[in-house]
Amino acid sequence: MAKNNQEFVTQIASRSEDFPQWYTDVIKKTDMVDYSDVKGFMVIKPYGYGVWELMQSEMDARFKATGHKNAYFPLLIPESLLIKEAEHVEGFAPEVAWVTHGGSEELPERLCIRPTSETIICSMYSKWIQSYRDLPLLINQWANVVRWEKSTRPFLRTSEFLWQEGHTAHATFEDAQEETIRMLEVYREFSENVLAIPVVVGRKSEKEKFAGAYATYTMEAMMQDGKALQMGTSHNLSDHFARAYDITYLSKEGKLEYCYTTSWGTSTRMIGGIIMVHGDDRGLVLPPKAAPVQAVVLPIAMHKEGVREKAGELFDMLKKAGIRAELDDGDQSAGWKFNQWEMKGVPLRIEVGPKDIEKNQAVLVRRDNLEKLFVPMDGIAGTVEELLKDIHVGLYKKALAMRESKTVEASDFEEFSQGVKNGFVKAMWCGERECETSIKEKTGATTRCIPFEQRHITDKCVHCGKEAKHMVFFARAY
Amino acid sequence: MAKNNQEFVTQIASRSEDFPQWYTDVIKKTDMVDYSDVKGFMVIKPYGYGVWELMQSEMDARFKATGHKNAYFPLLIPESLLIKEAEHVEGFAPEVAWVTHGGSEELPERLCIRPTSETIICSMYSKWIQSYRDLPLLINQWANVVRWEKSTRPFLRTSEFLWQEGHTAHATFEDAQEETIRMLEVYREFSENVLAIPVVVGRKSEKEKFAGAYATYTMEAMMQDGKALQMGTSHNLSDHFARAYDITYLSKEGKLEYCYTTSWGTSTRMIGGIIMVHGDDRGLVLPPKAAPVQAVVLPIAMHKEGVREKAGELFDMLKKAGIRAELDDGDQSAGWKFNQWEMKGVPLRIEVGPKDIEKNQAVLVRRDNLEKLFVPMDGIAGTVEELLKDIHVGLYKKALAMRESKTVEASDFEEFSQGVKNGFVKAMWCGERECETSIKEKTGATTRCIPFEQRHITDKCVHCGKEAKHMVFFARAY
Repeated sequence: MAKNNQEFVTQIASRSEDFPQWYTDVIKKTDMVDYSDVKGFMVIKPYGYGVWELMQSEMDARFKATGHKNAYFPLLIPESLLIKEAEHVEGFAPEVAWVTHGGSEELPERLCIRPTSETIICSMYSKWIQSYRDLPLLINQWANVVRWEKSTRPFLRTSEFLWQEGHTAHATFEDAQEETIRMLEVYREFSENVLAIPVVVGRKSEKEKFAGAYATYTMEAMMQDGKALQMGTSHNLSDHFARAYDITYLSKEGKLEYCYTTSWGTSTRMIGGIIMVHGDDRGLVLPPKAAPVQAVVLPIAMHKEGVREKAGELFDMLKKAGIRAELDDGDQSAGWKFNQWEMKGVPLRIEVGPKDIEKNQAVLVRRDNLEKLFVPMDGIAGTVEELLKDIHVGLYKKALAMRESKTVEASDFEEFSQGVKNGFVKAMWCGERECETSIKEKTGATTRCIPFEQRHITDKCVHCGKEAKHMVFFARAY
Repeated sequence: MAKNNQEFVTQIASRSEDFPQWYTDVIKKTDMVDYSDVKGFMVIKPYGYGVWELMQSEMDARFKATGHKNAYFPLLIPESLLIKEAEHVEGFAPEVAWVTHGGSEELPERLCIRPTSETIICSMYSKWIQSYRDLPLLINQWANVVRWEKSTRPFLRTSEFLWQEGHTAHATFEDAQEETIRMLEVYREFSENVLAIPVVVGRKSEKEKFAGAYATYTMEAMMQDGKALQMGTSHNLSDHFARAYDITYLSKEGKLEYCYTTSWGTSTRMIGGIIMVHGDDRGLVLPPKAAPVQAVVLPIAMHKEGVREKAGELFDMLKKAGIRAELDDGDQSAGWKFNQWEMKGVPLRIEVGPKDIEKNQAVLVRRDNLEKLFVPMDGIAGTVEELLKDIHVGLYKKALAMRESKTVEASDFEEFSQGVKNGFVKAMWCGERECETSIKEKTGATTRCIPFEQRHITDKCVHCGKEAKHMVFFARAY
């Protein structure tokens, strides 16, 4: 068994030696995704899609609880509509796919596949919103989007991805700002309480903000290789899109006013975050709330009397308690199965063998720390539920400690340059775009966010020495 | 109030005078859908999307219960991949949208937006399936598809629509056939038990079958205007796609064999069916299981003491019981609200006024038959639940009676020609494609399905007089 184990583990690269290869190995070995015949497009296989379904269901409930409803808007956007908001089209035109023919006929106007839906949604809001009574308008869309990419990696950057995009319209700038921050907070709470991923929240720099936004807010997570991942963004679009797409309303006072809009999005990219935050050299480690299988029941020495039956009973008990359990009574060796389910990151493995049956117990093995627990059969579903909660907390704490260990404060550019090789650097910054560009050229690091929680480190910009405006999180990023 | 009522009702066409206009009025007035800036593409507004979400959730549970898992495949398909199955490409090529540019660059090969995903999915199955142990492979996808249409109607025929497509692979033809029929049966049960729409199930003719299929099975419903609607199809693809895309497996005996595949789909088109089967001259009538709002609570004489509070209490009770309730305490008149919620097809309206509070009762009005019921407050949630079930049964029976009244048997072509003006005609048919084409040219009617439940009417084909092969349901269709 030890031998099998070893063999299996060496099938994937180690994180410390080759992190990108480890990532690729994990997503392939766990059957989360596959590469397709279309360059840059991924196939999300059932195991990966199962994670996304759980994330969707958790997020969707949060969107509905905050008053949003789902709707669906067209996949294709006429070029004339896309180009109405100048900054927006400048940002997105280089990466859209163009449809030029329908059947055998050339189209009178080419249509792009949505890279995001502000333009088409705003054109509808312009029709739907007449009076202050129609506000706020709170809509979310679950959809696929296409952004043409030259260099792709499954989940992290692909030419097509799945996401949700919230689009809301409000009477005032303040209402829009409140919504922008509310949804960022929904994202943060989701990331921490469902994915067990701690995030830094704050504002993007002018350079890094969404094309067409007044301000972009973001949540940023730290991966085990010291690179940051943007996990979700929320944009206050002010009246930029309302002016471009003529979204106006008649106020209570009978005055025609422009609306203020927001948009906010998260995507299948977050699955890449789960892998890179929690995974280890045995493979994936899934947070229990996003795990398609939370506990796998393995009968040990299946040929022995009563083993299959007991394992089946246990499986039924878990299912009945609402735990996403699976029973693996396949004919592979126990060692092979251990490795398989560890690779797939299932939070709990539950073994039932003849000796366990004698003692009326089961053996539970936690995926997060490989701890082995002997648990009485009576009330075992409750124990499993508690352990799943415990694993969530453990994963969160471990991820937080990892991030802390990869976060430094820099008061000079030498410290800064060393720091960004390893993770987040908190440093003071002047706020100038040229300085930001120069930092990126020299170190590969970008401003990840201007955190809400500010701290004064020095008076001067860590790079150019001019007067500092903010404390910023810098990092190399995906 | 009577006046308001009248005003409102006349805002939509009557079904008997202008059914197409009535349909258009209903979908607009109920805020189910809107037309977009992209010709032929619809926007599904929150109320329409809410219906789709309920349908998705009901269907998804059924797919999972029959062992299927969800996955996601690329939106775009290379032309070289699409053309591998000859009949398939012949059927779909005239209606696909072509992507020719990514960003500013022309693509080396043009890509079509999936009109359906057999080709891309089969190309993946060819990689994934190696041995008999990998079979059956049971996958479903929830997705958008594009089929270029010249003449469109929201839900019924649009250039983009939302759907699910199941794609499965099996070891034998018999296994594939069993799956094809199993999923048709899942569809039938869903249509009848969730949508309250009775359907005729059977096989499509060779002319009407899916491009590339060995056999297509269908469920067909009758609309109030006497036209049939295909509500869902299930295809046995035999080894056609397996041969074109090289899907093989090593059998237990160590022999390389072709797989047998199936596909099956239903779409947002079914929402059109709900509207046209159940709606009336007051607007939409939603079956309770597909109604985003199952019961609306209306406080009457809201200024009177205790009315708002009582209505609020009632609303809370319903929500607590898991009923999708809404409280309408807006400042519009009661008459306006009655019309509004009737238009939206909400199954139950619950009125609470000062007199009702005195009597510790509420007034329930059923949308299906407008029956008014005085119901004690105590245990009202249970009463509502029972009534919702009752409404479902009532709608189903009414729809079945409507279909029966629009179904005739024809033993000669005169009867046939009269019959298809009004609905389904059951008649004997020779099975020849030329005869089928000729019938369509003369009457506008097509073969809708060769029902599983056969009945011998005459010996000869109702049209050409040759020897009859089957009893067939004919109708004009959407």
